[in-house]
Amino acid sequence: MIPESHADLVAWETKSFAHVATIGPGGQPHTSPVWFEWDGSHINFSLTKSRQKYRNLQRDRKVSFSIMDPEDPYRYIEVRGELVDIEEDPDIDFISKMAKKYIGRDRYPWHREGDERVVMKVKPTDISGMG
Amino acid sequence: MIPESHADLVAWETKSFAHVATIGPGGQPHTSPVWFEWDGSHINFSLTKSRQKYRNLQRDRKVSFSIMDPEDPYRYIEVRGELVDIEEDPDIDFISKMAKKYIGRDRYPWHREGDERVVMKVKPTDISGMG
Repeated sequence: MIPESHADLVAWETKSFAHVATIGPGGQPHTSPVWFEWDGSHINFSLTKSRQKYRNLQRDRKVSFSIMDPEDPYRYIEVRGELVDIEEDPDIDFISKMAKKYIGRDRYPWHREGDERVVMKVKPTDISGMG
Repeated sequence: MIPESHADLVAWETKSFAHVATIGPGGQPHTSPVWFEWDGSHINFSLTKSRQKYRNLQRDRKVSFSIMDPEDPYRYIEVRGELVDIEEDPDIDFISKMAKKYIGRDRYPWHREGDERVVMKVKPTDISGMG
């Protein structure tokens, strides 16, 4: 689903951030950078249940990601899609996998007692590559 | 309005990209990187009238920007706001100013005959800095 020409942008080694856009209360778009994984069919990213983005996505499952080539900002993809699943991450396995990818740590170092981590799984409906 | 701690992220010299989120038809968020200027009170960016983002903002003026420190992806700001003005840019002055900022060119090199350029002026309503 990711065009061959832009597949490197979602590859593990590239460590691109995704700027994720969700719809807030009152219809305001929200956007911020996140760590993510492309698993071949979904974009997966981690949230705590206290985050605004988590509440936004509970109410409205539509989401979009903008992902830039870290070496060339004029190459990027936009992935639009829908949240299709939320998985609990009680042992912080998924966020630790992301910590491995982005900062080379085996375990996510910023976990706080009481944080309830989940994995947001997004199925793409539209993908476009630029540059 | 931009917190002092994160003012460098919107400074001319920093050349940060903004990932802009708008609301598409059917309520789908859209997001992509853009060149921008912070003029002290507004975020300004250029579009051609043929772009989906332009049509989105005609219909729904709510917008959000995610702006990362190019040197440290864990420092970023989110600026939420509303489109308050659209200025015509027939002589491509504004987009050429952006070309100066981002690629050091006096004139925007990719202008095509027939492109109708506009400047989108966004007034922030909410700004939050992270990292």
